[in-house]
Amino acid sequence: MFICVNCSKNSNLFSIWDYGKIEDMKNESSLLIKGAVLKGASSDVRIRDGLFSEIAPSLSPLPDENVIDAHGMAITPAFYNLHGHAAMTLMRGYADDLELFTWLNEHVWPFEAKLKAEDIYNGTRLAILEMIKSGTVHLEDMYWFTYEAARAAKEMGIRARIGLLALSTNGDADKLNRECLDRIDEFRGIVKISIAPHAVYTVNESRLLQCLHASEEYGLDLHIHASETEKEVADCQKEHGMSPVAWLDKLGILKETTILAHCIHVSDEDLEIIAKRKSWAVHVPFSNMKLASGAFPYKRVREFGVKACLGTDGCCSSNDLSMFGAMRGAAYLAKLFHKDPTIAPAEEVYAMATRQGALAAGVDGGVIEVGKAADCLLINTDLPCLVPNHNLISNLVYSASSECVDTVICNGKILMRGRVVPGEEEIIAKARESVKRLA
Amino acid sequence: MFICVNCSKNSNLFSIWDYGKIEDMKNESSLLIKGAVLKGASSDVRIRDGLFSEIAPSLSPLPDENVIDAHGMAITPAFYNLHGHAAMTLMRGYADDLELFTWLNEHVWPFEAKLKAEDIYNGTRLAILEMIKSGTVHLEDMYWFTYEAARAAKEMGIRARIGLLALSTNGDADKLNRECLDRIDEFRGIVKISIAPHAVYTVNESRLLQCLHASEEYGLDLHIHASETEKEVADCQKEHGMSPVAWLDKLGILKETTILAHCIHVSDEDLEIIAKRKSWAVHVPFSNMKLASGAFPYKRVREFGVKACLGTDGCCSSNDLSMFGAMRGAAYLAKLFHKDPTIAPAEEVYAMATRQGALAAGVDGGVIEVGKAADCLLINTDLPCLVPNHNLISNLVYSASSECVDTVICNGKILMRGRVVPGEEEIIAKARESVKRLA
Repeated sequence: MFICVNCSKNSNLFSIWDYGKIEDMKNESSLLIKGAVLKGASSDVRIRDGLFSEIAPSLSPLPDENVIDAHGMAITPAFYNLHGHAAMTLMRGYADDLELFTWLNEHVWPFEAKLKAEDIYNGTRLAILEMIKSGTVHLEDMYWFTYEAARAAKEMGIRARIGLLALSTNGDADKLNRECLDRIDEFRGIVKISIAPHAVYTVNESRLLQCLHASEEYGLDLHIHASETEKEVADCQKEHGMSPVAWLDKLGILKETTILAHCIHVSDEDLEIIAKRKSWAVHVPFSNMKLASGAFPYKRVREFGVKACLGTDGCCSSNDLSMFGAMRGAAYLAKLFHKDPTIAPAEEVYAMATRQGALAAGVDGGVIEVGKAADCLLINTDLPCLVPNHNLISNLVYSASSECVDTVICNGKILMRGRVVPGEEEIIAKARESVKRLA
Repeated sequence: MFICVNCSKNSNLFSIWDYGKIEDMKNESSLLIKGAVLKGASSDVRIRDGLFSEIAPSLSPLPDENVIDAHGMAITPAFYNLHGHAAMTLMRGYADDLELFTWLNEHVWPFEAKLKAEDIYNGTRLAILEMIKSGTVHLEDMYWFTYEAARAAKEMGIRARIGLLALSTNGDADKLNRECLDRIDEFRGIVKISIAPHAVYTVNESRLLQCLHASEEYGLDLHIHASETEKEVADCQKEHGMSPVAWLDKLGILKETTILAHCIHVSDEDLEIIAKRKSWAVHVPFSNMKLASGAFPYKRVREFGVKACLGTDGCCSSNDLSMFGAMRGAAYLAKLFHKDPTIAPAEEVYAMATRQGALAAGVDGGVIEVGKAADCLLINTDLPCLVPNHNLISNLVYSASSECVDTVICNGKILMRGRVVPGEEEIIAKARESVKRLA
């Protein structure tokens, strides 16, 4: 809220930005972005029915069309976050800098044991708010109370694939998962349900097969942690005589749409398998660093032609959800790890966060082109960290932060304008209420 | 600039925030911050003559005192950036992801050859603007046209130590450096001049000794790159039969106030020397990663009791100047490098960016305590990336970004309020003018 110096009245930023509540827009299906800089040239971009429909130096508004004046801003693809545990926002900063088992036994699990459906809803909304504020339009989620998380995503207008989490023994969660599958047709739009067996060390063979069969029966994609730690690989070798990747492949889990989070401790044979199956390797650099899990073998992943994209993990692993950090972390870690500053150039990690990420999310988007999904950002290039603008992509990867994102459009709908997301104060208040009860 | 929805007139944010230009304040020497959260409790903080003078649950405003309403915000120490090349902002994103010598020969040096005094002034102002926007109050600089950079810092109210850069042969810069030393008494306040021999591989023995003598004659501190690359160490061994650290020590460069930037490839003997001389090791994590220079030996630096602080480097090395990135990079890199998630906990790297950084900068500050330098930030803890607030320091290190900094106070003066720095549009316009001519 700002006080106007001319009339001394309160001015709600929300109204100032002339887009009102998203539901008040004149014609939901048509939007014209005027004067945004696209690849160096001022462009008008029309969005109809969730797709970019026209791009030209100048387009006239249609009757009843919503118009955004984007002069002085750049229009860019939005970001796609391919691995996370959204509601873990509630545990941000709750327990850091600890040994894995101290962290899990004494902090994470006791906290999680108290989580109720409402907390997942509140925590997921907080995560989505943070993601929108940092330019992300897709959430690949794996946590408890799937229905509540999916409901939060649907209400907030973000794309999501919310995983039905499976362990060898799920306890009460099994019933909830079944109920969620019964209502699966509520989630066939931009918010989908996926099947998320946790990892080979927490999900036994019969349970993995059950997940596979459910994914086939309901037409759902798979999302699993793979080769995150050395211990996971050693234990799998001992138990199954093969690596986690080979084991998952043997069971049939590695499909073209399967999301493999982390993929750090992978052999050449593992990379050959992943490349052959065309599954997605999700690089999660800041989580891997903070938890000392290891370094993603960026160069070999490229050499083997493995499809790769980026994620942030949940806020309990690495504490924020910004894809700016994921991009910078991916580039910097690869350069250091491979002792080569030319590895992982800005364009490449930017593509991982945009075009590659979109494809991994099952969206023909991640680029500003006619016919592609209308997911985009308006970037405020007047912030000092983006000045000068020798190379916008370099700036976005190496010096931008969330504040540079002025506007977020997902599936043709405005989720944020002028850095304001409708209802953000209530979302934060509700998350705090949950934390007060849990911590 | 916002359009008021009530009267349809333009409202300048600057006036809205009710602090006007800094020079319009009622009484420059006295400021009362009301209701800020300090270590979990609402506190009033009085600042007089550049120091924190009173801290209590409630203080009444004095006649003519400037008052900041900080309810709902946290008050924290500001950040001190102990290594950079400020005017390199002009080259942000100009040449990334290249081999060292391609980068220098084909991009950096041709660009630098065209730099004039005015460009350094413009580029330094842009750097300081970016630093203030990310909560930094001290610039440790090493670049050309020292007088212009120091003038920029003085005008903008930030603390700085601007280094007179020395190579074996300085060319025209020698004359400028001498002129700057002639005017040294202009820079005895919060903006100081230092002596900055570039590194052992670019500055020969006689020149290093000349720097040492100038530093003693004028009472100036020393700032030098040390042990940044393997090649630097190998070449020094070959030329002088000892490491860069041992060589600098032999020449007498390692004083208690000497700033050693990078300190990556240091032996145990080197660390023993640095600890004994009580010089400062500046960890510059993102630059070291992006340029693939190597990993700072965090654990050994701690074990040997070396005084350590943080820096960002110039925007040509790592592209932004945010100390949030430096803190996160330091923590994450140490954990990965030492394969131990308990290394470099948030409190420790936070201290490196605040209390340790202040001491390295020669300032008895970096903490909010009566009698200490009045450098502080007001943090907006309502941004989603800082919610919930289980642990503010963890949040600041692991999930905050520049946008969280609402207000910056340096030496008791307000440099930013409501994220607005006076004159920022002109600073950006001037930097763009320089770049247009240079690129």
